[in-house]
Amino acid sequence: MSNSTKDLDHLIEMMAKLPGLGPRSARRAVLHMIKKRALLMVPLADSLQHVAATARECLNCGNIGTSDVCDICTTEKRANGEICVVEDVADLWAMERSGVFKGRYHVLGGTLSALDAIGPEELRIPKLMDRVVGEQISEVILALNATIDGQTTAHYIAGELDRRGVTVTSLAQGVPIGGELDYLDDGTISAALKARKAI
Amino acid sequence: MSNSTKDLDHLIEMMAKLPGLGPRSARRAVLHMIKKRALLMVPLADSLQHVAATARECLNCGNIGTSDVCDICTTEKRANGEICVVEDVADLWAMERSGVFKGRYHVLGGTLSALDAIGPEELRIPKLMDRVVGEQISEVILALNATIDGQTTAHYIAGELDRRGVTVTSLAQGVPIGGELDYLDDGTISAALKARKAI
Repeated sequence: MSNSTKDLDHLIEMMAKLPGLGPRSARRAVLHMIKKRALLMVPLADSLQHVAATARECLNCGNIGTSDVCDICTTEKRANGEICVVEDVADLWAMERSGVFKGRYHVLGGTLSALDAIGPEELRIPKLMDRVVGEQISEVILALNATIDGQTTAHYIAGELDRRGVTVTSLAQGVPIGGELDYLDDGTISAALKARKAI
Repeated sequence: MSNSTKDLDHLIEMMAKLPGLGPRSARRAVLHMIKKRALLMVPLADSLQHVAATARECLNCGNIGTSDVCDICTTEKRANGEICVVEDVADLWAMERSGVFKGRYHVLGGTLSALDAIGPEELRIPKLMDRVVGEQISEVILALNATIDGQTTAHYIAGELDRRGVTVTSLAQGVPIGGELDYLDDGTISAALKARKAI
């Protein structure tokens, strides 16, 4: 195989490593980009290079941005005494899209896991404790995933914060808006039933 | 919104334009790349830039490579008098993966379509006719998709080649290997039945 196909194959191989893409969709994506070279492929390469060179984790909360401290941590009006704790940046973005939370975030960078030997020091938990004091936090909202590891982590953080006299809450569990009971797992139904409200 | 998030959003927007990716998977892909910056993001940006600068269509067959004439058209041992006609480069790659065809290819770049005003001149059909004479082709294998436009195009090309005294064949239609009858459409079953063979 000559150089020409090797370059293409190499590109396809790398594209296929992205989550959500396999070899077949990587091939389709590469052909699509070659067809839209000026409009898509060149700008995409530039943007990748630019973000690769500039993206970094916020030193305060772990969000991804291009400055040492991210926009949310810089904006004074988001210092309302609330911190929302999430597992990773994707969760932070999901919360931001909903546009309801007005406070700041703290990205743990994973969950506690005995199996993978991930303890509080491996996550951003000590930093969270510092922030609670330093930023005069009154409420910490735990928005961790409803997995076993996520809930273990939530429990651990709640225990640590309780000793510091901070209100700790977690997202409500229940039926998703627009969700059909028939498609929900038993755990969700039982959680929604336990937390039922008068209407 | 400040510059930092704008750069990320811009990258996500462009990734979301790739076939097979939507906004959600584009976000996941971008976060994944930022985590694997040195191993994936930077090499991918380089590779995209390199391919964008060098990829071009083979002047002879329309395959994509980095030279004026592609490897398959250059290799003398693939000049066996057979040309396989495909709609686009993805189909050529699919044929090559099977590794069975030993001749050369001709990429039409689409199908004839009255609705979209695509006639023979818009495709690479005149070039195919030149090649049939110039490369002493004895057989043209039409490997076009089994869609209406694909079959119309196959018909048209077969007619043109017939006048030039070239054998024209098409891929066999029938039950895919490993395919279950229950999941096949009626057209395939009826084609497979009509083309049944003694065993």
